[in-house]
Amino acid sequence: MTSPARTPEPPYVAVIFTNTRTGGDEAAYGEMAGRMVELAQQQDGFLGIDTVTGADGLTITNSYWRDHDAVVAWKANVEHLAAQKMGREKWYQTFSLRVATVERAYGFERG
Amino acid sequence: MTSPARTPEPPYVAVIFTNTRTGGDEAAYGEMAGRMVELAQQQDGFLGIDTVTGADGLTITNSYWRDHDAVVAWKANVEHLAAQKMGREKWYQTFSLRVATVERAYGFERG
Repeated sequence: MTSPARTPEPPYVAVIFTNTRTGGDEAAYGEMAGRMVELAQQQDGFLGIDTVTGADGLTITNSYWRDHDAVVAWKANVEHLAAQKMGREKWYQTFSLRVATVERAYGFERG
Repeated sequence: MTSPARTPEPPYVAVIFTNTRTGGDEAAYGEMAGRMVELAQQQDGFLGIDTVTGADGLTITNSYWRDHDAVVAWKANVEHLAAQKMGREKWYQTFSLRVATVERAYGFERG
């Protein structure tokens, strides 16, 4: 089972990406989505990522970043820009993107 | 298909709840989880909620609130407090809770 992302003490930045797909192109889309996670993980300032797709097709991807500069750099990554363009042109029926500063956080792990 | 939550212009507050379950008690857990969504929607300052459980058991629930006071009031709701206690005692293997101020947001909906 996937473990939730572990992040340092706040403050840090959360990028909340919520989307529904147009449908079709599952293999190409899955390849792109996997590549974007891989690429995000290589970015300076990346802290963690949780992504879940439900049976009804809603996907939530929460990624965590050291600061706003790291988010801006990730958004401007050339390969990521190409994926964003494909998202608007083809992959997504709807999406919303929220950038937020995490101020408080706590966790629990069963012993 | 579920539509992503629609929220007003920032700033507002995101509560990012990520969990994995201990397993078992699916009916009772599902009933509690559904009741908590229903109850959250009745709280003053509630703006929207997206919740997704993946095939691997990871659940992300992002809820959106007018301000921090609304989040504090929701956390202190008596029925919610009982659910939080059950979560720690029984339902969750791991969870993390992050409270964040959403500063920028944009969306896209295919015409």
